[in-house]
Formats: sequence, structure tokens, C-alpha cells
Amino acid sequence: MNSSIIRFILGNVLKIEGLLLFLPAIVSGIYLEHEGFYYVSVAAVCLILGFLMTRKPPKNQVFYLKEGCITTALSWILLSFFGCLPFYLSGEIPSFTDALFETISGFTTTGASILSDVEALSHCALFWRSFTHWIGGMGVLVFLLAVIPLSGGSHINLMRAESPGPSVGKLVPKIRYTARILYLIYFAMTILEVIFLLAGKMPLFDALTTSFGTAGTGGFGIKNDSFVSYSPYLQWVVTIFMILFGVNFNAYYLALFGTLKKALCIEEVRAYFMIILASIGIIFLNILHTCNGIFEALTHAAFQVGSIITTTGFSSADFDLWPQASKTILVLLMFIGACAGSTGGGIKVSRFILLIKTIVKELNSYIHPKIIKKIKMDDKPVEHDVLRSTNVYFITFMILFSASVFLVSFDNNGFTTNFTAVAATINNIGPGLELVGPTQNFGHFSILSKYVLMFDMLAGRLELFPLLILFHPAAWKDLFTKRFSQRNHG
Amino acid sequence: MNSSIIRFILGNVLKIEGLLLFLPAIVSGIYLEHEGFYYVSVAAVCLILGFLMTRKPPKNQVFYLKEGCITTALSWILLSFFGCLPFYLSGEIPSFTDALFETISGFTTTGASILSDVEALSHCALFWRSFTHWIGGMGVLVFLLAVIPLSGGSHINLMRAESPGPSVGKLVPKIRYTARILYLIYFAMTILEVIFLLAGKMPLFDALTTSFGTAGTGGFGIKNDSFVSYSPYLQWVVTIFMILFGVNFNAYYLALFGTLKKALCIEEVRAYFMIILASIGIIFLNILHTCNGIFEALTHAAFQVGSIITTTGFSSADFDLWPQASKTILVLLMFIGACAGSTGGGIKVSRFILLIKTIVKELNSYIHPKIIKKIKMDDKPVEHDVLRSTNVYFITFMILFSASVFLVSFDNNGFTTNFTAVAATINNIGPGLELVGPTQNFGHFSILSKYVLMFDMLAGRLELFPLLILFHPAAWKDLFTKRFSQRNHG
Repeated sequence: MNSSIIRFILGNVLKIEGLLLFLPAIVSGIYLEHEGFYYVSVAAVCLILGFLMTRKPPKNQVFYLKEGCITTALSWILLSFFGCLPFYLSGEIPSFTDALFETISGFTTTGASILSDVEALSHCALFWRSFTHWIGGMGVLVFLLAVIPLSGGSHINLMRAESPGPSVGKLVPKIRYTARILYLIYFAMTILEVIFLLAGKMPLFDALTTSFGTAGTGGFGIKNDSFVSYSPYLQWVVTIFMILFGVNFNAYYLALFGTLKKALCIEEVRAYFMIILASIGIIFLNILHTCNGIFEALTHAAFQVGSIITTTGFSSADFDLWPQASKTILVLLMFIGACAGSTGGGIKVSRFILLIKTIVKELNSYIHPKIIKKIKMDDKPVEHDVLRSTNVYFITFMILFSASVFLVSFDNNGFTTNFTAVAATINNIGPGLELVGPTQNFGHFSILSKYVLMFDMLAGRLELFPLLILFHPAAWKDLFTKRFSQRNHG
Repeated sequence: MNSSIIRFILGNVLKIEGLLLFLPAIVSGIYLEHEGFYYVSVAAVCLILGFLMTRKPPKNQVFYLKEGCITTALSWILLSFFGCLPFYLSGEIPSFTDALFETISGFTTTGASILSDVEALSHCALFWRSFTHWIGGMGVLVFLLAVIPLSGGSHINLMRAESPGPSVGKLVPKIRYTARILYLIYFAMTILEVIFLLAGKMPLFDALTTSFGTAGTGGFGIKNDSFVSYSPYLQWVVTIFMILFGVNFNAYYLALFGTLKKALCIEEVRAYFMIILASIGIIFLNILHTCNGIFEALTHAAFQVGSIITTTGFSSADFDLWPQASKTILVLLMFIGACAGSTGGGIKVSRFILLIKTIVKELNSYIHPKIIKKIKMDDKPVEHDVLRSTNVYFITFMILFSASVFLVSFDNNGFTTNFTAVAATINNIGPGLELVGPTQNFGHFSILSKYVLMFDMLAGRLELFPLLILFHPAAWKDLFTKRFSQRNHG
């Protein structure tokens, strides 16, 4: 295993985190908050460590999928560890486990909070919390690929490990330019949302943090009631942007550099919008009698559907009080998730399209056993390997999900709480139902459960295998045998 | 499509049902119950219809998987329709939907009841209810294969459609003898259980109905409290027999005609016992503080684990009151289910073994992308087709499951009720949690939900595709085009 390049990339990740930590420090300067000191200190530690780790560039820059996965998993763990220190050291989140939970929830764009009173936090903490969503949404390694020149050519493996979806496409032949284009679209759309929110008279601080949470499909709010007290205009702006950030970014690339028609022809994008419209329709009818008029029902239905399918997790209403059919739709949307290649989580619309096509193919094989038809997506035949890995992904997801629900059950909460707590974390949503409903939080779980849920958040964001591989003995065997043999030869 | 052989087999199924309906009629004679009249009448109708349908033997006896599936699905629907008539006509179950629900629940060996007071039923109704479990357990088509000479050779397709598990093996080259051996083992073990129950001073009627319910892994009880009031000895006898009927019947064949060692070497059987022991262990520790001593805790843990993993559904305690961890284990066991080739339901242990091996293989492929290792089971490489269909089965199961939970949610019951109601029917268990817990029943559901759950019971028992195929337009197109072209030519 090429461990020197892993060290090199991790060092660069730390340097980036060090730089990013100055942003909340600036915020603390503006609001004259003493907590800024901790952000500067941790930033300094990150920068020093980062420089030490990147002093010697690796001789061999080639690395494979295995290294890509391990690097990605370790990057995210490292990011979360250092990212949580300001919360912990400043005493704003007194328990280390809770601080780590909140930070992992931030970077993985989950938005599940252990805090019961968000409004008590300092501005710099609120800013950093929301900013972790923005960093985690597109991915720090994709950012790295965009800014740091890495030769060697195998870096698609890094992007493959961090980017969501059954298959990673390069928009342009050079991976570096692909990463840059993605970040440019991401940045531009975030700015656009800030402008729209400011136009609705939202304060700048709120507009920034809200846009970070929307862009990363995260969901940390800066108010205890999330989005309930904002005006319908602001709720609709956020609804629309949530849904836009759940679209496959390839569609934006196509719309910008190709034609809008081509972008709208992407099968996944069409399915995504159809699911959203159908869900809004059913929920609207289902909650109409509980709301003050058609407009309110439509606003809440659209907001919650947009929030859950994109795995953002803001809430404009306490949907835990809604009729069961509406709640069940939201739970199902948690699993479907957003489009591949977006910042959203969940299993992804494209995977579900492939799964359903697989079922139809199986049914056809009962009728016409001798006819073999290839499954197609966007009029192109899907490679066998993509289908196989989609199936395996779904199976692994469900088994990991079940194991987590079992482990969390030792807290003796109800089944609905446990089920939706795991669903809301592994799919990177945020709120679930009952004890983890929109007005509740994750603070009451035991330490064991919190670590299980942290694992689920990371597993969900990194699409399972990059994280699971850390638990495979062979992933480490290589490293140690090589070291050992080097020492013996040296 | 060979529709004449479908008619011929369905006719024979009706004849068998006609004959079997005389058994409850005899019971009514013994207990001097007037309800016997309805059983005799329905039996007569079945026999007449059956004779009419089998008057002309089909010219062409060859048929394929498609016909096998359609025949199987239609047989089970027909069986259930005529089987429910005595309940409905006698007025013992006044609603037709409820009578059909109860009968489908019987034949599919689910054991979910819509009755709140079972003890109010006549003896013949109780007998028929439990006897449907026994018929459905091994399957009426397997019985047909055992007794009726069908030439043509493609009848493995019938057995494949009705028998549970990822792959159907013939015990002996001739399918007819395989079917006979299976029924002989089934019959002998049922008798054995009756003897053991009688030895524990259980009345003959109770012993018979209990044994039918155990053998078929059904779960209809004849007492309102299921198995709570029986002695620990009887509870243990039933526990052991439930677990034995959940074992792959191949193991018994090997033990009888090979060696016991060979039988115990079957990977699925070993995994099955390991899951049972682990589950009993955890639940035992988890419920110990709620029970009067170690023996009671062990008895209840073993009974419920045996009952749920084999998908029987008897209960010796109201497990809905247990701590959440124990309940969660039971819910997970519902999905795992018994061994393939047993009378139990669920997804089946062997499928889970294959699924987990698939995940491990995927993880390995990240570490060593170039090494291709075949997945093995019982030291033999598993065919690609079996793996693929196992994956597709799991995916189809989960999507059908989710759709059902959604449809049932319109009744506005809680998530736990809906989730476990669907889990308990699609896996052919019987009781779930909360409103469908062991002391509750399914009577409160709306008509829509009852039909959804009936569909799930049939889908679960027939392993999805034979039932789903009925909804595929191509399955019928063939039939009508052929008829139409025949008419045009005639």
C-alpha cells in the first residue's frame, strides 16, 4: 500500500481545515466573542500538523481504489476530530462525544443535533456548524482535487470514494477541471440563494448559515424551531433551493454547456421531480384538514418533501404530528434520497431506478426465459458491474441499517424512534419521528448509540464501502507487512 | 401457454380440497355441531367443479416455469377462496373479507387472525383453521405431485414455484418420489409431536390442532391467550418441534438415508441453530429481570425465538411488553426466517448467508480488485444465477414491503403497528407489535389494508415472483392471443 501518499493527502486535508477554521474566527471577531480563540488555536494545530505531514512529497503518486477508500475514510474522521475541538474546548458542547457527534453530523450533512437549545450558541459556533455542511456537501477531497496539483492519474479513485452515486462520471476528461466545475456551480448557487434570502429581508448571518445548510443538504438551523418562524417567502426560497441542490450536478453542467433539454432528459432527474411532485400531492391532500387553507398546506408539504428527499432536514412544521400516511411517505423519501452526483444523501434515485428495472427484468425472465435484454439508463446499456454493485450496495445498506437499529435498541426507546433515528443518520437527513422528531434532538441517546449513529452518518455519506474497508484486516495487513519487511531489509 | 394443463391441475387441487373438507365435517359430527353442513356443501361443490375440470386430460403435458408460477398462484387463490366459504356461510366469520383473510392466513401458514375471541368458534372451524396450516406448510401442489401421476417431466417447475428457498433440489431423481419422501417426513414428525403433547396431558383435539400449527409453522391457536396457559412441559415440546420444522428437510433426508454428521454439516442448518442460540441468549439476559427466575426467562426466550424465527407465531408471553432490544431481535428474526426447504417463511437463512457472503466478496474486491473468488456454500461454488436471483429476491422483497407499509399507513395507526403488521404477514409469522401484538388481532384494519396484507401473505408464501407474475400483462397476453387465433382458425 502506498502509505506516503495517504499521509500526504491527509496532511493537505488538515491544512485546508486549518485555513477554513479562520472563517468562524473572523465571525467571532465581528461579534466580539471570546470563543474565537479556540478556533484560531485549533487552526494553528491543524496547519502545523498539515505542514509536517506534507513536507516530504510522496515519491510514488500512483494509488488504487483501496488507498482511495482508506484515504477518504481517514480524511473524514480526521476532519471531524479536529473540527469538533473548538466546540469541546470552548465548553459550548461540554461532552466530547456530543461535540464529535455534532461535527460528524455537520460534515456528513446530516444535521442531527444533540443540542436542545441552539440559540444559546455563539455566532462563531453557529457559523462553523453550518459551514461544515457546506464543506461536507461537495466533499473536501473533491476540493483538494480542484486546488492541488496531483500527478499520477489515478485520482478518480479519490473522487469515486467520496462522491455519491452508483457510478462517477467525469464531466471533462481532466479530473481536476471536473472538480473545479463542480465547485464553481456549487459556489454560484450558494451565492444565488444568499441573494434571494436577503431579498426576503433575512439578516445576512441567517442567510449565510441557511444557504450553507441548504447547499450541503445539511439541515442545521440557527433557530430552535428550525424554519417554522420564517416567512412563507423564505420557506419557498429554501424549498426551491433544497430541491435544486438535490439535482444531479451533471444536469447543471449540461444546461450550462449543452442544452437545457438535454439536462431535463436525464432519467434520474425526471424521476426525481416526479417523486417530488407525487409526494407533495399526496401529503398536501393528507394534511389539508390540519392546515389553515390551501396555501399553508402546500407550503408545508413542499417544504418537508423538499427537505427530506434531498436529505437536508430543515422543518417548517412538526411533521411528527401529521397523519401516518404523510409520515410514512417522508420515511420512504429518507431512503430514496436525492440524485447521484448531488450533495444529497440517501440511497439515491438512480439506484432505485436501477433496482426497479432489475425487478422488471427478473419478472420478464419468468415469462420469456430465453430473451436476454440489457437494462438501459438514459438509452445506454448499463454495465453489469454497475448493476451488481448497485444490488450489493442496497443489500449492505439494509443489513447495516438493521444491525444499527438493533444496537440502538438497547437504549429502550420505542421502535419508531430507533428506526427513524438510524434512517435519519445513515441517510444524512437529520430529524426522524417521535423522540428524534423535528422538535426533539439526539442528546438523550447513550454513548454507545451515539457512536453507532456517528458511524452510520459517516457510512451513509461515504457510501458504505470506503468506511467498511477500514474494518477489513487485509486493508491494514499490507501496510504493516510492508513496513516490517522494509525494516528487516534496512 | 398451455392453459389446458393449468385447468387440469387446478381441477385436481379442487378435488383434494373437497376431500380435505370432509375432515372438519367429521369433527363437527363428533362434537354434534351443525356447522358441519357448510363444510360438506362446500366439499361437494369443490368435488363437482374439480371433476368437471379434470374430465378431459390435457393432450400436452409439458409446461414451463411461467405456467408453473401461474398455476401455483391460481391454486393458492382458489384454495383460499373455497376454503373460506364454510367460515363465511356458517356465519362464524360474518364478513367475507375477514373469512378470506383468516383462510389465506391459514394456508400461507401466517397465523394472523382477525378474530378477537377464538374460543367462541366451533370445533370444526378451529380444526379447519389449524388444518389449513398443515396443508399449506408443505404445499398442496407438492402433495399433488406426490399422489397424481403426471408425465411430461417439467413438473419441477411446479415444485420450484411452491417450495421456499433460493434453489430447489430434488432429493431423488424422480420428482414424485421427492414429494412423497417430503410428505412422509412431514407426516411422521407431526404424529410424533401429537404423541409428545398427549404425554403432557394435552387433550387430543388441542394436540392435533397444535401439531398442525407447529408442523406448518402456522401459529393459529385455539385459545385466546395462545400458549400462555399451557404447562412449561408443553411449551418446551412445542418450542423444540417449532425449531425442528424450521430445519431444511434435506437435513432429515440426509440423516435418515445418509449420516447424521452429514446432515449437521449443512451450512444453513448450522447458521440457523447459531442464530437461534444467540438470540435466546441475548433475550434471556434482557428479560431476566422481568421474569420469575431463570427457568421462566429461558422458557419464554426459547419459545418466542423458536416461534418467530420459524415464522410460526405462537406466543407463550406478551412479548410486546418486553424491553426494546428483545423486541428488536424478534423483528429481525421475522425477516431472517427459517431454513429453505422447511415449512417456515421469511427471507430464509440460506439467502442471508449468500447475501452476507456477497458483501464480503465486494469488500474483498476493493482490497484485491484482480482476484476473483467464487462464493461457496457447503463447499460447492454457488452458481451465478442463484446469487443474482437471491439479490433480486431481497430487493423485490424490500420494495414490496415498503409499498405495503405505505398503503397500510392510510389507516392512521402508528409506524410500529404498520411496520410489524406487514413484517408479520409478508414473512408469514402472525403476531407483530403494538396493535398487532400477541394479545391483539388484525380485525381493526380497513378493507384496503386487509387486502394488502392478504396479498403480502400470499406473496411471502409463494416467494414473490409466482404471485407478481399474475400482474404482468405478458402472462395473460399469450393466453388470449392463442385463444383468439385458435378461434380464427377453427
